[in-house]
Amino acid sequence: MSKPLKYAVFGSGSWATAIVKMLSENLDEVGWYMRSIYTKEHLLKEHHNPSYLSSVEFKIDQLKLSNDINDMANYADVLIFAIPSAFMFGELEKLTANVTNKTIVSAVKGIIPESGLLVGEHFHDIYKIPFENIAVIAGPCHAEEVALERLSYLTISCADASKAKLIAKDLASDYIKTKISDDVIGTEYAVMLKNIYAIAAGIAHGLGYGDNFQSVLMSNAIREMKRFIKKMHKMKRNINNSAYLGDLLVTGYSVFSRNRMFGNMIGKGYTVKSAQMEMNMVAEGYYATKSAHLLNEKNKRKTKTPIIDAVYAVLYEGKEPKAVFKKLTDKLD
Amino acid sequence: MSKPLKYAVFGSGSWATAIVKMLSENLDEVGWYMRSIYTKEHLLKEHHNPSYLSSVEFKIDQLKLSNDINDMANYADVLIFAIPSAFMFGELEKLTANVTNKTIVSAVKGIIPESGLLVGEHFHDIYKIPFENIAVIAGPCHAEEVALERLSYLTISCADASKAKLIAKDLASDYIKTKISDDVIGTEYAVMLKNIYAIAAGIAHGLGYGDNFQSVLMSNAIREMKRFIKKMHKMKRNINNSAYLGDLLVTGYSVFSRNRMFGNMIGKGYTVKSAQMEMNMVAEGYYATKSAHLLNEKNKRKTKTPIIDAVYAVLYEGKEPKAVFKKLTDKLD
Repeated sequence: MSKPLKYAVFGSGSWATAIVKMLSENLDEVGWYMRSIYTKEHLLKEHHNPSYLSSVEFKIDQLKLSNDINDMANYADVLIFAIPSAFMFGELEKLTANVTNKTIVSAVKGIIPESGLLVGEHFHDIYKIPFENIAVIAGPCHAEEVALERLSYLTISCADASKAKLIAKDLASDYIKTKISDDVIGTEYAVMLKNIYAIAAGIAHGLGYGDNFQSVLMSNAIREMKRFIKKMHKMKRNINNSAYLGDLLVTGYSVFSRNRMFGNMIGKGYTVKSAQMEMNMVAEGYYATKSAHLLNEKNKRKTKTPIIDAVYAVLYEGKEPKAVFKKLTDKLD
Repeated sequence: MSKPLKYAVFGSGSWATAIVKMLSENLDEVGWYMRSIYTKEHLLKEHHNPSYLSSVEFKIDQLKLSNDINDMANYADVLIFAIPSAFMFGELEKLTANVTNKTIVSAVKGIIPESGLLVGEHFHDIYKIPFENIAVIAGPCHAEEVALERLSYLTISCADASKAKLIAKDLASDYIKTKISDDVIGTEYAVMLKNIYAIAAGIAHGLGYGDNFQSVLMSNAIREMKRFIKKMHKMKRNINNSAYLGDLLVTGYSVFSRNRMFGNMIGKGYTVKSAQMEMNMVAEGYYATKSAHLLNEKNKRKTKTPIIDAVYAVLYEGKEPKAVFKKLTDKLD
């Protein structure tokens, strides 16, 4: 038997914390990199993350904590990145360790704004990681429900099925079921796009549209997502699988989704700036909207994406949400 | 120009009331049949339905009210049935008027339990109505949101596109957008099946499953619905259109759905009987579950329907919801 893989999770948000928890169910040791010295100290002393999923108690001798991204990259065979896309570029600038032979797993929900690349593409281009060593973890999965050990399903995508299976096994437990897929690019785009649709759902709600419209919006969103992803990477996929439709639904219908909340504030009349200041963070979908817009612009024949276009017009062109969504309703069916 | 069609709506529940309201926006006169003499008298005096959507005020001189189903059938060209499926058979036993040349529209959310037939099939078989004179109204559409004039979308299905268009036009208004489809059978099955999935969602919620699982359940439900309908009536359809997926979502995610509420009580430990007594009504999905089960039994090669099977086991075979859903979770992905 080959020796077990060493894992490290990079990031200290709720999703990173949830992934460390999942791995802790199976592994003797889990590496965990976080930027904040304070978070690390707090974890060592109090055995929980001070800011996210703080109800989750870790066995501290099971964790290998570090504030040094290169130490952690050297330590692990499988590097799972769960850093907000907006901070990925800055973090990766520090990464000088040789990761050519590592398996890179993206649990990032979006495109790296500075490069306009999916996380997988970024590692392939910059660090020369072959595609068969790149994987993606997709939901549908609120981190908060992992903390509560509520049954959740994950999809692990990798071009190398045996690698996907290994990672899937190490994440699975009583409350986590995992499946594998070979659609790395498609699931990564889906993870990114769903946040845009969650913003759209939030704007609609903020404007006073009801549940009937919300369901029409989601029905159109999954069709739009299918078109968009197909244009980016054509292959056989069932867009109604959990990693695509399920993830869209858990985000689009959740009142806890930060993207939906951000949209809701804008629908209610906040400016983009004031909504961001009020939330004290930038919703992933904000960057995703720009990235998706730019990607679609690059297509010779643009894909029909009325929902992304509407969100883009509101977030980046200063258009009135009410007027934009009124027009959008005529394009949906 | 040909003279305008005369419409009559049959039923006095919330969906019937909502349809009368929609038609009232466009027509000089709308026929409305209801069994209850009291409801008719109340409408005449108070201008609203005493029991459903009572906030909707009707212009009483616009309504042609009757307690006689045959009078109303003789009056109208287009007969819209919005009677709970459990009461359809009893009501139709009274229908002796000649309806051969009428257009029959089903707004019934289920199969007629006594005949095991869809409403359209029932009219075709018993009253010899040709299929091109049979239409279906599908959501996604909570009647309560029609009352509030919140933007909603309807799909009108009919083999005769010109008929579908006419009806679609007469239902459309500022707050109702309509589209047409030629998939009469598929939309009727979808309307029926969604209520079973809403019961499943309710049971899961009652048992303590969370949002992550709910989204996996819905993602599996739409794939199961696609398989089921395809087996019943194979044709090109996009299952992610509003009439299928949208309708599933608005029902499965709504805390107001009576089917979901019924399932929720059962998940929380009520027996089927006590849940029905507590609700003082029988949820449509209760009958739909039996019908779908029987239809699938008839298939030589059964369609894989783990969710319907689970709901059937709980509602009709007295199985423990907790154990049944535990097993179900292994069949979903």
